[in-house]
Amino acid sequence: MISSSSNSQVKHIIKLNHKTKERRREKVFVTEGYKMFNEAPKDWILDVYVTQKFEQQHREELLEHHYEVVSDPIFSLMSDTLTPQGVLCVIRMPFYSLDDILGKESPLCMILEDLQDPGNLGTIMRTSEGAGVTGIILSKNTVDLFNPKTIRATMGSIYRIPYLYVEDLCSILTELRDRKITTFAAHLDGKHTYDREDYTGGTAFFIGNEGNGLSQKLSKEAGRLIRIPMEGNVESLNAAVASSILMYEAYRQRRKSYLTKS
Amino acid sequence: MISSSSNSQVKHIIKLNHKTKERRREKVFVTEGYKMFNEAPKDWILDVYVTQKFEQQHREELLEHHYEVVSDPIFSLMSDTLTPQGVLCVIRMPFYSLDDILGKESPLCMILEDLQDPGNLGTIMRTSEGAGVTGIILSKNTVDLFNPKTIRATMGSIYRIPYLYVEDLCSILTELRDRKITTFAAHLDGKHTYDREDYTGGTAFFIGNEGNGLSQKLSKEAGRLIRIPMEGNVESLNAAVASSILMYEAYRQRRKSYLTKS
Repeated sequence: MISSSSNSQVKHIIKLNHKTKERRREKVFVTEGYKMFNEAPKDWILDVYVTQKFEQQHREELLEHHYEVVSDPIFSLMSDTLTPQGVLCVIRMPFYSLDDILGKESPLCMILEDLQDPGNLGTIMRTSEGAGVTGIILSKNTVDLFNPKTIRATMGSIYRIPYLYVEDLCSILTELRDRKITTFAAHLDGKHTYDREDYTGGTAFFIGNEGNGLSQKLSKEAGRLIRIPMEGNVESLNAAVASSILMYEAYRQRRKSYLTKS
Repeated sequence: MISSSSNSQVKHIIKLNHKTKERRREKVFVTEGYKMFNEAPKDWILDVYVTQKFEQQHREELLEHHYEVVSDPIFSLMSDTLTPQGVLCVIRMPFYSLDDILGKESPLCMILEDLQDPGNLGTIMRTSEGAGVTGIILSKNTVDLFNPKTIRATMGSIYRIPYLYVEDLCSILTELRDRKITTFAAHLDGKHTYDREDYTGGTAFFIGNEGNGLSQKLSKEAGRLIRIPMEGNVESLNAAVASSILMYEAYRQRRKSYLTKS
């Protein structure tokens, strides 16, 4: 049992939780809690750390993994949460190509520009899976997807939704056009409200940074500017909320069109 | 200029930022940043604290208020944010009746049961204003609306959306029925998907706690159980996201019905 804070594995996990660079260098990330352990693809799990209590309660599920038992106080040190659930995994990062995201029929894709809030990013990934999104493309200045807060907010969708960080979002626009994917940007100058457009074909939504919105450069490149109407004095919606409203409108139309066809 | 951390006003603000009890006792809360200063109803502002830089840049707007200048390091102590914007207000709490929320024609109301995440609560209030919601009813165990994190996430909607904390949510159900307001609860057992119901009449949505969902007791009391469909392995959506999808569907129907009528 690991019971010393100077143990090299303990130090390693703490480093992985805090340092984006280290996660990128090793191409791994850390997940916490039973749900994240349970839903992880088996061959993505590199190491498992558990408390004694967790080991007792989940002995069978642990059989197929190499795992280490850690004393409660040291487990708390390794954990990024206030109330650790007693299991923590080191997971190898998945890597995807643009084709994994756009290669399906009528892809539905989220393109995120410089999002900064880890919770927002994780929530967008979680909702993406719910709405049948085929993948997420992120500008290189978007907050790290493998930040513990983001991972937690994905509620497991990190294991299932393809993603791709790109140097410059403008560089993929030609690819989107070639694949006949219509790009939509929510914008105050949008001509039509978001629910008056057709999202049943290949669709990509641009979502801008929390404070500044979408850059002018990217707004100009969008095929269609759409407007999410707002009452009262509201100037904008939270980025995860705006994303969710758009994704679920696309999903609503796609379910309807499926029902009509079948 | 206030430049000592032992100043009683400084201590008072820190206390208000950290203690729900103190805010409730004094019936005040603290807001930060220019937007929150600018949008506050003038007669709700009790005190204003600014940095020298803010005073220089906004002298005219400050004229109508009693304000105190605070040194930068002490302002940082008083602030709940990492990058303070140099203005902080003590605001008197608004109080509303059930009639403020339900008294309009075809009210649209959010009923929140034991929500725990301050960011979720603030985001729901912000989106509520955007979607034309008439008010929010909160169970007494819901996180404090006047928590600095919640206030920040409302982006000013806290000044404009009526709210009411109630001892027991079941106690208002009769009132809702008497006013012919249909209650909807998002539930896995929901018969119809959320977009197949009519929200153009008086409507209230029940939203449950992040971890446990809506209590059985309240689910049973809901007029209609609705389902937000989800693809993949997603079991539930974030509470603010689920709320937003429902509110914007209601708003979409209401705009449409308004367009048809006019």
